[in-house]
Amino acid sequence: MTGSEQIVTTEYAEFDVELQLESGRLLGPLTLAYETYGALNAKRSNAILVTHAWTGDAHAAGRHTPEDRKPGWWDDMIGPGKVLDTDRYFILCSNVIGSCGGSTGPTSINPRTDRPYRLGFPVVMVRDMVRAQKLLIDRLGIDSLLTVIGGSMGAMQALEWGILYPETTRSIIPIAGTGRTSPMSIAMNAMARQAIFNDPMWKKGNYRPEHPPADGLALARAVGHITFLSEPSMNLKFGRRFSVRDGIFDFFGKFEVERYLEYNGSNFVERFDTNAFLYLAKALDLYDVAWNFDGREDALSRLHCPSLWFAFTSDWLYPPYQTEEVVEILRRLNSPVEYHLIESDYGHDSFLVEPEKFTPYVVEFLERQENSGER
Amino acid sequence: MTGSEQIVTTEYAEFDVELQLESGRLLGPLTLAYETYGALNAKRSNAILVTHAWTGDAHAAGRHTPEDRKPGWWDDMIGPGKVLDTDRYFILCSNVIGSCGGSTGPTSINPRTDRPYRLGFPVVMVRDMVRAQKLLIDRLGIDSLLTVIGGSMGAMQALEWGILYPETTRSIIPIAGTGRTSPMSIAMNAMARQAIFNDPMWKKGNYRPEHPPADGLALARAVGHITFLSEPSMNLKFGRRFSVRDGIFDFFGKFEVERYLEYNGSNFVERFDTNAFLYLAKALDLYDVAWNFDGREDALSRLHCPSLWFAFTSDWLYPPYQTEEVVEILRRLNSPVEYHLIESDYGHDSFLVEPEKFTPYVVEFLERQENSGER
Repeated sequence: MTGSEQIVTTEYAEFDVELQLESGRLLGPLTLAYETYGALNAKRSNAILVTHAWTGDAHAAGRHTPEDRKPGWWDDMIGPGKVLDTDRYFILCSNVIGSCGGSTGPTSINPRTDRPYRLGFPVVMVRDMVRAQKLLIDRLGIDSLLTVIGGSMGAMQALEWGILYPETTRSIIPIAGTGRTSPMSIAMNAMARQAIFNDPMWKKGNYRPEHPPADGLALARAVGHITFLSEPSMNLKFGRRFSVRDGIFDFFGKFEVERYLEYNGSNFVERFDTNAFLYLAKALDLYDVAWNFDGREDALSRLHCPSLWFAFTSDWLYPPYQTEEVVEILRRLNSPVEYHLIESDYGHDSFLVEPEKFTPYVVEFLERQENSGER
Repeated sequence: MTGSEQIVTTEYAEFDVELQLESGRLLGPLTLAYETYGALNAKRSNAILVTHAWTGDAHAAGRHTPEDRKPGWWDDMIGPGKVLDTDRYFILCSNVIGSCGGSTGPTSINPRTDRPYRLGFPVVMVRDMVRAQKLLIDRLGIDSLLTVIGGSMGAMQALEWGILYPETTRSIIPIAGTGRTSPMSIAMNAMARQAIFNDPMWKKGNYRPEHPPADGLALARAVGHITFLSEPSMNLKFGRRFSVRDGIFDFFGKFEVERYLEYNGSNFVERFDTNAFLYLAKALDLYDVAWNFDGREDALSRLHCPSLWFAFTSDWLYPPYQTEEVVEILRRLNSPVEYHLIESDYGHDSFLVEPEKFTPYVVEFLERQENSGER
């Protein structure tokens, strides 16, 4: 009933284009890394786009090899008999531009210089990521997405899909998102940024991949990690326990919560590029659905498809009021909107940790979209 | 009616003692920097101890010279006709041990080596700070404190005074405090610590005072500053405004909130010692009223004097529930406790920014304590 996708492969699509970015700069040629699960039906009406968060990638489900210790980042959600049922839907996930998971980003070779872009990479916005994804959807011959679903930065992409491509996007499911990032979340990202800038190994982005600014990136990731957790989840998970290895009066002694953050930060260095981390932080900070529109109401008046929104009570990175502001405007505009505030102690990470709390609504919503498409 | 103390002077008391610390280590001789405002009355019954927060010092009110741009850190509260009325009360504030405002701390000379302590300084707890303050109170011939009042780390000291010295302490007023710091606040301090540890200029605490780890300390202070602010205060103060000096697509471009944090962080480097910052962060993290007692209830059962507590709705560093947990236990123990949850958007800093919201309760409480003392 709820098996996992078995062995999956990341594929790469090349686009010989010059994508015009929101900044006015051109980016191209483009590579997009992506994975698909399940099969497109004859009517090509069962495609679902899954959009990933900050440090996510195209590998949303299944394993690349039988030996992989962990499956893709949303394997709880995607597979035969699961919420995003691969016996029924054709699921697609692609790595965003600006990242380091195979799509064009700061580690890619700049064709104009034959060297990695590094800080020569242009600043990208979430809207640019979505424009690049549209190229991939077109390439795959998909002219209709049953839904676009994602959490955090994935929620921003889902909303942008609905606004930019109303003909293609039949519905959206933004989870733990925001209509615009707050100064609090910008401030936390600024701390992460500064931690990297302060690391002499960063060298203004010109570090060698084998000698990254590990201390700075680990600290930056730990700052981010705090924003994904919550006061109650930390109380539950760590309390005030002190590391058994340290003495409480040892100057360098650590609480369990510190060790956890340190451990997670260090691990991250092995799997993520520092410049890509910075470019994506920038994209998050710049995110405002009103960008280049006459305000939020004008932007949201372009969303015609049904939308299903979730926020989590303990999320302090993108607190519920931020989703509710968007939902409120959509309701005023008579947009077909459904919103659920989910009680969860797991903070922003709830969309990854407790999917069972919101998935029943997703299943029901998707069934309604399928039926409405058949009418 | 509400003038300011005029010119005030920091004084220094020397104690040729070996203070036994909670860690078991001995610290001495001790210097305590302090200031006093107003005069002790004939009955010696009008003394109030003001306890300072993390980066505060003995200079709570008035100016050191007529040219001083700013008065002491709680000048809004202390002076003739003010809440802590110097025409009526004898106000005393002393710099805590472990700090760098004139009291013995990591920048002091270790008499055993004739060199600065630096990381040879012992880890101190809030309880140790209070024991040192008791030496000063005794030296000044004060055997009764009308109240001990302070915010944040000052609230912790007030509570410790009530528990450790019930004969001396007639009442306490802990503001924006906590009975024990949470893993969330420890995690934020851990980020601040790591920012300093990552700075090569830190040299494990052996930097020269003229070459401090400025980048690390500035970032550490900025992390702290975020915890003193709040989501609503940042929305009000900064919103999503981008620095007019930067382009929005400039990789190094900054939002106003970033510039503010950067500016405040840099300023801080000029006025605070890095090692002292770390020792005080440690004291905050270790703070738990239950320390060395059989739990919180046992600890709080030793508080016999009336206590007046304030928490602020938007304080996310020491959120109201943490004060409420303490108040709840005190009520259960039939301790004379008064608690007010103050609506304020200014987060943890509310006790400095909006004193007028809670001071009416303080005035009334102090009058009651004076009257009960005269009975």
